[in-house]
Amino acid sequence: MNFSPKLLENAVNEFSSLPGIGQKTALRLVLHLLNLPQAEVEKFSSTLTTLKRDIRYCSTCCNISDDHLCQICSSVKRDKSLICVVEDTRDVMAIENTGQYQGVYHVMGGLISPMDGIGPSELNVESLVERVKAGDVSEVILALSATMEGDTTIFYLYKKLKDTGIQISTIARGIAFGGELEYVDEITLGKSIATRIPYENSLVK
Amino acid sequence: MNFSPKLLENAVNEFSSLPGIGQKTALRLVLHLLNLPQAEVEKFSSTLTTLKRDIRYCSTCCNISDDHLCQICSSVKRDKSLICVVEDTRDVMAIENTGQYQGVYHVMGGLISPMDGIGPSELNVESLVERVKAGDVSEVILALSATMEGDTTIFYLYKKLKDTGIQISTIARGIAFGGELEYVDEITLGKSIATRIPYENSLVK
Repeated sequence: MNFSPKLLENAVNEFSSLPGIGQKTALRLVLHLLNLPQAEVEKFSSTLTTLKRDIRYCSTCCNISDDHLCQICSSVKRDKSLICVVEDTRDVMAIENTGQYQGVYHVMGGLISPMDGIGPSELNVESLVERVKAGDVSEVILALSATMEGDTTIFYLYKKLKDTGIQISTIARGIAFGGELEYVDEITLGKSIATRIPYENSLVK
Repeated sequence: MNFSPKLLENAVNEFSSLPGIGQKTALRLVLHLLNLPQAEVEKFSSTLTTLKRDIRYCSTCCNISDDHLCQICSSVKRDKSLICVVEDTRDVMAIENTGQYQGVYHVMGGLISPMDGIGPSELNVESLVERVKAGDVSEVILALSATMEGDTTIFYLYKKLKDTGIQISTIARGIAFGGELEYVDEITLGKSIATRIPYENSLVK
């Protein structure tokens, strides 16, 4: 497509660089923004730059946070001896929305994926191992997606953690294989945390 | 959904205020932006504010433009005696992409819609009437959507312009090229039979 004013073209290109946004959708969004008052467009822009500039990562669980400790890690109501390992922030939100889990989290920041050049060193593995070795942890729940990458990461973490002697669980495979965690309905997700099983038992012979 | 860091929630709310973007999509876009370098997020933001601050509207056709005259109105190759009236910038782009039209445009900025509180005074009607009355215009093509609002606007413009004595046309309505007859709605099919044209005239030159 040909977007004649250069300013419009730049804005459309920025929007269509976002995942799932094509040029036609980008144009629609940009023209919507153009019809808003100047102040609202500036608010939109400044919200994004502020987010990027001021967001922190929790020093304990690596989740995004307002402060150096996230709301979950700093809450006295949460069980610090129970660590749920997830891929990213969206998974934390998905599990929080089930209302079934009272422990804390550890956000990996991705999954092991040799195809994409992501190895264990790119993920928050060391901080998890240190956290477990520091003591006071009774169980680690590996709540990763039921995909090839998820299974690889689970296996890697199991090998890393099994010598510590603590209980290592995976969430129950009530989730369809190939399914992504964030799109699972809340009942299934909640149940799968409640019916977690020891990792050894999850290996179907 | 509960987005715990306030900064994240603000950004998600801004994105989900855009048309066609729900909260899950907004979250996905925001987390994508969070993973980009700071400089790229700032570029994204500044592109939007620059667009809103620096964009001009063509003083002749009311289309968005870099300058006080748009590229189409300032081109010597375009036939200034032929004015195509459209709803908004997207329609200009759609017609330009056909490569079939060599005249100029007039962008209404919307359609008459009493339900949404949009009357003729909110649209670029007066500037069109002035442009036609200024002379050198041989034909006005009303290329508006085939909806209630489009028809209302066409009828209003026809009444406003008919005394000038110039040719007023509407774009042909009928069955789309490649469309199968059995799937066409009854109104379109009925109208297309009623407004049939000699076969010779249907051969596009």
